[in-house]
Amino acid sequence: MNRKETISTWFMGLQDEICKGLETSDGAAVFQEDKWERPGGGGGRTRVIEHGAVLEKGGVNYSAVHGPTPEKIAHALKLDAGEFFATGVSIVMHTQNPWVPIIHMNVRYFEMSNGVHWFGGGIDVTPHYILPDDAVFFHDKLKRVCDSFDPGYYPTFKKWADDYFYITHRKETRGIGGIFFDRLQGKDEAQFAQYWQFVQAVGKSFLPVYQELIKRNKDKAYTEKEKQWQYLRRGRYVEFNLVYDKGTKFGLDTDGRSESILMSLPPTANWKYNHQPDPGSPEQQTLAWLNKDMDWLGYAG
Amino acid sequence: MNRKETISTWFMGLQDEICKGLETSDGAAVFQEDKWERPGGGGGRTRVIEHGAVLEKGGVNYSAVHGPTPEKIAHALKLDAGEFFATGVSIVMHTQNPWVPIIHMNVRYFEMSNGVHWFGGGIDVTPHYILPDDAVFFHDKLKRVCDSFDPGYYPTFKKWADDYFYITHRKETRGIGGIFFDRLQGKDEAQFAQYWQFVQAVGKSFLPVYQELIKRNKDKAYTEKEKQWQYLRRGRYVEFNLVYDKGTKFGLDTDGRSESILMSLPPTANWKYNHQPDPGSPEQQTLAWLNKDMDWLGYAG
Repeated sequence: MNRKETISTWFMGLQDEICKGLETSDGAAVFQEDKWERPGGGGGRTRVIEHGAVLEKGGVNYSAVHGPTPEKIAHALKLDAGEFFATGVSIVMHTQNPWVPIIHMNVRYFEMSNGVHWFGGGIDVTPHYILPDDAVFFHDKLKRVCDSFDPGYYPTFKKWADDYFYITHRKETRGIGGIFFDRLQGKDEAQFAQYWQFVQAVGKSFLPVYQELIKRNKDKAYTEKEKQWQYLRRGRYVEFNLVYDKGTKFGLDTDGRSESILMSLPPTANWKYNHQPDPGSPEQQTLAWLNKDMDWLGYAG
Repeated sequence: MNRKETISTWFMGLQDEICKGLETSDGAAVFQEDKWERPGGGGGRTRVIEHGAVLEKGGVNYSAVHGPTPEKIAHALKLDAGEFFATGVSIVMHTQNPWVPIIHMNVRYFEMSNGVHWFGGGIDVTPHYILPDDAVFFHDKLKRVCDSFDPGYYPTFKKWADDYFYITHRKETRGIGGIFFDRLQGKDEAQFAQYWQFVQAVGKSFLPVYQELIKRNKDKAYTEKEKQWQYLRRGRYVEFNLVYDKGTKFGLDTDGRSESILMSLPPTANWKYNHQPDPGSPEQQTLAWLNKDMDWLGYAG
């Protein structure tokens, strides 16, 4: 197999493994799969889960597409025209219980016919209610994955996530962040191999991390008021994804399969005019924590 | 009064009149007002209605802002820098009853310190279920308003609305269209005066048209299934407003008051993966009518 096949085959296996693991954690629903083909070349496997015991709606998408580089992509990425190849796995999960956070993960590989190639990806968590113990757990796991490759990765990619997952017009981060990276291109084969190992480690970290967050929170009781707050937070998630998210823009701009791209949207979202949580409430505390540069690993209660 | 004051004062009066009329039609809720000031100059009156008998959530916003032209505006509008002045009224209404359509109206005036100035605006209706009688009524009213000024207005501005209120990634129009126009700049005082008269006539047309659509449909019985369909259609409305709407982008890009800009978002919206209405259902019929160049005035059942 060539490099493109090796990577896309591994991503396909990751999709299988994650779907299986999420079905186990959910215990009730299973993924439905839609295979699709891209008219310009390639295709994908969209897998969506709905009405689960834990997972209210979510998707684990795999794709591997190729062909002449669309004008908009070449322009946006400042690339010469030519043939492109892109493969990746994208995940977003919305949960029944407001105490279980929304999670997002993406790992991707891009290659041009002129030899330019890079990895990108990230993983971030959006709690409806921020629980410091969970935030510390999540960032600690990510730091361990990063540190096993390079001590510079976590601080760099954590900051990148803070900057990327930011809802400018709300002056709020989307959630507690995580890591984000793009255009990781090895200067030689050894560095390329390290980036590829890193991307695989990020992909592999998703399932144990999210299964733990589910286990900790899925049986917690919640009130109608808490569910209503969840709907408002999902409204913000919609705002981020439709206004700022580059993957969504890229997909919609290049006439991608809209049902696959927009699987990230929640089952239900609410908007209330100028809603302000009560001072001292858990909702207000969550808002106060939605800012850049929160150092969860240094959080001391 | 100078031209800017004359126009903005008239717009303020229009806001008053429309709010009063909508409160009458609703019969239960009243608007709450937030006055705000823009740090760079000017401000507005945001008026929002929620939890009405007819109107579930909506806003009638007036603003008149001015100051040094923000870089992004100058660039987007291909203008020289300098001072700008912008005033307008914007309305979006989401309804309790899925048989009452969503409506949007905007009238606006823009002027630069170098003398460049123009009017823009539009009015369009987004039924959750398209009722041909209502669509014909609506377009007939708009055509009469247009024709009293120029027989070329309706066909031109109707097509502009079809092109503007289009959700490219869904290959669907947002609703049954209406009229849309921008950068109407008179070549002399007489033409300027005509455009101003036209913009006032569009503004004045809103209330009787929407009051009639409310009266026709507000007491119709509806099922839970129809309410669920309404939530899905609102999801599309969110997609249009956050991905394509120029007023929303303009507002968010220029650090506008986000709660005022995003009053257009519905109280509740749903997304289901790849939802396909049953063949022959009213939902499927509505989708079939959501395409450009529908000639409602030539519709013969």
